[in-house]
Order: sequence, then C-alpha cells, then structure tokens
Amino acid sequence: MEGYFDYAATCPVDEDALGAYNHAARHYFANTKSLHDPGTKAHALLEQCRNTMAGLLGIGQEGVYFTSGGTESNELAIDALLKAGKGKHIITTDVEHSSVRNLIYKYEEEGYKVTRVPLNEVGIVNVEDVEKAIQEDTVLLAVQHVNSDIGSVHPIRQLSDVCRSYGILIHSDCVQSFGKVSMEEVAPYVDSLSVSAHKLYGPKGVGAVYIRPSLSFTPKTPGGTHEGGVRAGTVNTPGIAGFTVAAEKMVKERHRIESKITELKEAFLRAGEWKIVGNTSDHSVPIIGLLLPEMEGQWAMLEGNRRGFHFSTGSACSAGSHEPPGTLLAMGYGAEEAKSFIRVSFSHHQTEEQVEKLALFLNGIRKPTVAR
Amino acid sequence: MEGYFDYAATCPVDEDALGAYNHAARHYFANTKSLHDPGTKAHALLEQCRNTMAGLLGIGQEGVYFTSGGTESNELAIDALLKAGKGKHIITTDVEHSSVRNLIYKYEEEGYKVTRVPLNEVGIVNVEDVEKAIQEDTVLLAVQHVNSDIGSVHPIRQLSDVCRSYGILIHSDCVQSFGKVSMEEVAPYVDSLSVSAHKLYGPKGVGAVYIRPSLSFTPKTPGGTHEGGVRAGTVNTPGIAGFTVAAEKMVKERHRIESKITELKEAFLRAGEWKIVGNTSDHSVPIIGLLLPEMEGQWAMLEGNRRGFHFSTGSACSAGSHEPPGTLLAMGYGAEEAKSFIRVSFSHHQTEEQVEKLALFLNGIRKPTVAR
Repeated sequence: MEGYFDYAATCPVDEDALGAYNHAARHYFANTKSLHDPGTKAHALLEQCRNTMAGLLGIGQEGVYFTSGGTESNELAIDALLKAGKGKHIITTDVEHSSVRNLIYKYEEEGYKVTRVPLNEVGIVNVEDVEKAIQEDTVLLAVQHVNSDIGSVHPIRQLSDVCRSYGILIHSDCVQSFGKVSMEEVAPYVDSLSVSAHKLYGPKGVGAVYIRPSLSFTPKTPGGTHEGGVRAGTVNTPGIAGFTVAAEKMVKERHRIESKITELKEAFLRAGEWKIVGNTSDHSVPIIGLLLPEMEGQWAMLEGNRRGFHFSTGSACSAGSHEPPGTLLAMGYGAEEAKSFIRVSFSHHQTEEQVEKLALFLNGIRKPTVAR
Repeated sequence: MEGYFDYAATCPVDEDALGAYNHAARHYFANTKSLHDPGTKAHALLEQCRNTMAGLLGIGQEGVYFTSGGTESNELAIDALLKAGKGKHIITTDVEHSSVRNLIYKYEEEGYKVTRVPLNEVGIVNVEDVEKAIQEDTVLLAVQHVNSDIGSVHPIRQLSDVCRSYGILIHSDCVQSFGKVSMEEVAPYVDSLSVSAHKLYGPKGVGAVYIRPSLSFTPKTPGGTHEGGVRAGTVNTPGIAGFTVAAEKMVKERHRIESKITELKEAFLRAGEWKIVGNTSDHSVPIIGLLLPEMEGQWAMLEGNRRGFHFSTGSACSAGSHEPPGTLLAMGYGAEEAKSFIRVSFSHHQTEEQVEKLALFLNGIRKPTVAR
C-alpha cells in the first residue's frame, strides 16, 4: 500500500493484532457467558482485555463495554447520557462523525432542541460559544476529540470544565484520537467516550464505549446479559483481543509514533505551499486537510487514484454525498471553496520519501491540468 | 475440544473461514465507501459476499444487509417491519432468543400490545393458536425458525400463509437454522430474517439481516451511507468474507452434514433412556434438549464440566438468570421439572464415540449421585 494516504478512513490490521485475533478465535472461541470451562476461559480473556483497555484509556475498567465499532459506541453512549441526565437540549457541532450527526438529527426529530456551535479559524470549538449556547434544560454536549477531516484537536478538558459547572453531561467521540494522541486531557473529564479498533490498526467490527459507572441509566435494550447488560449479542472475543493488542502497541509506542508522524507531516508541509485548513502543525494527529487551488478535490482524488495515490475528500462514511465536508462549512468556508478540499492521512509505517512523492504529485497536478 | 457439546452457544471458527478473514484483512482492508481503488476493491468483495449470501439464503441480494450479529439483525428487522406495517399488536412466543424477547418487551413498554402464543407438546407453535391471536391491528408475527433450547423447527411457511392472508408481516430469527437445515421453507416466505456467522463456524461479531426490499421503512438511524443506509458503521469486510465462506461450506455440504448429525443424534438417543423435550428425532437440527431424572441441570452441567464434558442448561445469552428455560415453561412444564433440563448440541466434526462417551457420563451420574 505504497500510495495509501487514507489511514483516517481505515487502517490495515496490524500483524500482531491479527495474530491475537487468530489465537483467540482458535483457543478462546466459547461463548463468554457459558458457565463451563471453555466459556470461563473466554470470559477471563475478555475481562483481561477490558482491564488492559481501561488502562490504555486511563480510566477504570468498570464502565468499559466492547461494541461492534464507533457507530454503536456513539449510539449507546448518547442514549445513556440522555437517559442519565435531565433536559431536552443538546449542544453539538456540525462536524461530528456522521454516526453522531445522524443520531442527533434523530433525537431532534423526536423533540430534542439542538444547538450546533461553529468552529473557529483553526478548526476547533470555542469554549465561549458552548457556554453561550447553554440553556436551562441543556442535558448533553457532544463534541469529538479529533476532527476526522482536518485533524484539529478540540479542547475537551476545558469544555468539560464548563459542562461540569452547569451540570451538563459530556460525550466525546474519540475514534480519531485514541492511540494517536494522549487521552489524558479527555478520558477522565468526560461522561462517555467512544473508540474504534480499525482506526488504530485493529480488526474491523470492534469498538468500545466508556460510560461513567456512577451514571444511572436504562440500557438501550434492557434485559441483555452480555457486557453488563449494556450491549447484547455474543461477545466478539477474537476481535476484542485483536483490538486490545493493536491499542496497546499504539499507546505504548505513542511517543515514537508521534515523532514519526510529526516528521512525515513536516516533510509534506515543506514540499509545497499548501493552503492548510485548521491548525495542523501544532500536534501529531496524522491528518492534514488542505484546499487545492482552482481544482475540485473530487477530481484530484480520482487523478491521484489513477497514479496510485489514494487519499480522500473527507470522511469515507460521508463519501458519495456530493456535499462539501461539514467541517469546512462550520469554519465559515464557502461551499465552492470547500469543494477543493482533500484529506491526506498518514501512517507511522510510511517513509518521508513516500510522503514527498505524494506532495510532488499534488504540486504537479495543480499547474498544467487546471486548464483542462 | 473433545468434550464440547455446546455448539448451539457458539462454534469454533472454520479454518477456511478464518483463512478468508485473514486474506480479506490483509488485502481488502480499505473502507468499502472510499472512492479510490483500494476502497473499490473492498467494495467489490463485499458485494460478491452479499450476492453469495443471498444465493445461500435463497433470496435476492437486494435486501441483504450485513450486521454485527444476530442481535443487531433482529433489532433492525423488527424495527423495519413495525415501521413498514400498520398496527400496534405483535404476536410472538416466549421462546424467542433473548435479543428478540427483550426487544419486544421494550416495544410493549412503549405501547405495543403483545400476544405470546404457547408451544405444543413437540415444542412448536400451533398455526391455529397464531390465527386465534390475530387482532384487527396485528402488525407483526415474530417466530424463530429453530428453537435454541430443544432444536424444534417451527412451521414458518404455514405461519406465513396465515400472515399473508391477514396482511401481517412476519419475521423469523434463523440464527439456529441457517446452514443446519434447509431455508427453502422459510426465506421466500418471510418479510425479514436474521442469521449469524458464529453459529455456523464463521467469525464472531458478524451477521446478516434480510428485509424484503419491497417494504417501505425508515432506517433505525437515518442518514447512514453504508449497507444501503440500513446499517451505519465501517463495514467489517474480513468478517463478512469469513462468514460467507463458512456459510457456503455449510450449505453446500448440508446433506452430508445432516446425515452426520442424524447419525450422532441416533447414537446419543440409542445410548440411554432419555426424557427428550420436544420432537428431536424427526429432523437434523444438532440440538437435543432433555430432562435428567431427579437432578438439577445446573448440577449436571457443573459435574460434566469437571469431567471434561461441556454442555449447557439453555441459551448462553440467558445464562446466569437462574430461571428455567422459557421454552419448557411455554410447553407447559412446571418450573421444578424444567430445572432438570440440559441442552446438548453437536457438530458434524464429532464422532459417534465422543457422543457415546457423553451419553455414558449422563447415564452414570443420574444413579449413584442422586442420593447426594
């Protein structure tokens, strides 16, 4: 995958994570709820993974539930928080992942009032804007940790301070941040957060949600026995084992990975005069969003593909919508300008040479081909 | 797994299915919604799997959606059917898998009326009972294809005839039947059905739902782009590839597998004077439910475990509830008698010798140990 620059959409699975998946699939296959030895053995592995995952997230293992991915994690968390809190007003942004955005549209149709705060010029939520949006019956603030289009890092801890002073619950979608940047300023300060395995080189179809255990809520579908009643369905122990190994590798090597990503980003930024969206150089999130001069991102993406460079025009889960990324609109960009947006996302397995080749390609296409 | 007799709870993954999982994880890892070549390649594999799966189910591929498993499939299907149909009355049984049972309890709390029809002496729903239960605003009949406790096969086609004549939609949970018995009398006659990979030697965390494409319904969370908008979240292509290979093997070799299961069941039934629950000898479902004389199933299960025999006292997803299986209560057994229930479930990979050893153990424990 020499020319793959779409790691924010999904990553190839890490070989050690895949190894853990295979090992668990073969040797820990029983139902974790079965009361015989094979079941007990699978259950022990599950709880060991939960314990490890909680440690990696920097929270207690009580409240960590494994799910089928980020989307389900977001659904379970937001449902729980709306039930645990009081009030019918939600504050969020227009730049959340589609799973959060669509969910909140649904709650809006069901009678919740929703305020969507904009982003500032560097692509993050202003704490003051959130404070101004608070109403008497505000129950929830839902803001992602890292933006999936431009990689900006929202000030979750400061937002949490505001929420706590007003008694508002806070959920953060950490799918793009977990394993990439520190969770120290997030995990202890939110009431729920969601993470996904495949964004950090784990298996697809696995995620986790943390819901603060002191919160009192009825599960989305009551009566289940798996995952503390919060999430029904036979537990995907192999997937969870793979997720845990992948997350452990990323978190333990975070400093090395962050240095590598910073180098790759610097190499890319050096190689062209880019019109970067948001403030991308002050952190090590492996995402850069940029505007191509006088060229549709869609066209550049297809031309890149033809030459073996695979990047995107925004979140894959919103692909095909033909609308410019919500992130840019929320930052005040016009729809026309936003159409020239592309997203490039990196891996610590890449080399500076690979990144420079991409930059060379992007530099090249904007001159001669504009006249087409 | 010499003494494992809990294949109805979950199966070890088939090596070919695991091979397909690994191959797809390595070579088809991209997001199926990404518009570049790696994404297109993953998408093509996904659609090929959907096409194969539809063929194995005996239905059109339009309407087949991949999910995270049986539980989610049941949720999506029942939600869709309640929206597509008209009326506030549901007919179901008390013997559905907990995912269906819990869901219908939830709808009941939300205002639906529910009639739960009993089972007859062989452990299946009487078509006449369903017909009698129909009310003017009956919208849905939800009946499993194969019972997970005793392996009985419900007359879905006949139930469908009744439903169609009254304009009632029908959902069938086929998690315990797909790959084990023919779907010919089910798939073309229902409005929705759910299946799961890990019950037929596929990977955990993967399932599929079929919702008849002519039905008009709003997805549970509108706005998603994956899986025709019916199910959001990055698609688990490797899991789906593994599921497809596992299902293909089971369906293609069904006659051989059915013969083998019949032999194993016959060997088991020959080896003891069992008090069988329901009519288990007239079909090849690999599940036998039986009552142990004067002994709690729970005790037998633990004693068996100590000696290396791993069976269960009912569905793993209801394990730990300390209540006797709903199937027996719905058949009219008393709570006390139902406590002596155990479920034994087989695999075509087992030998008659293995099965006879289990029978020998079960025959043995009921005599000397009763006096304890």
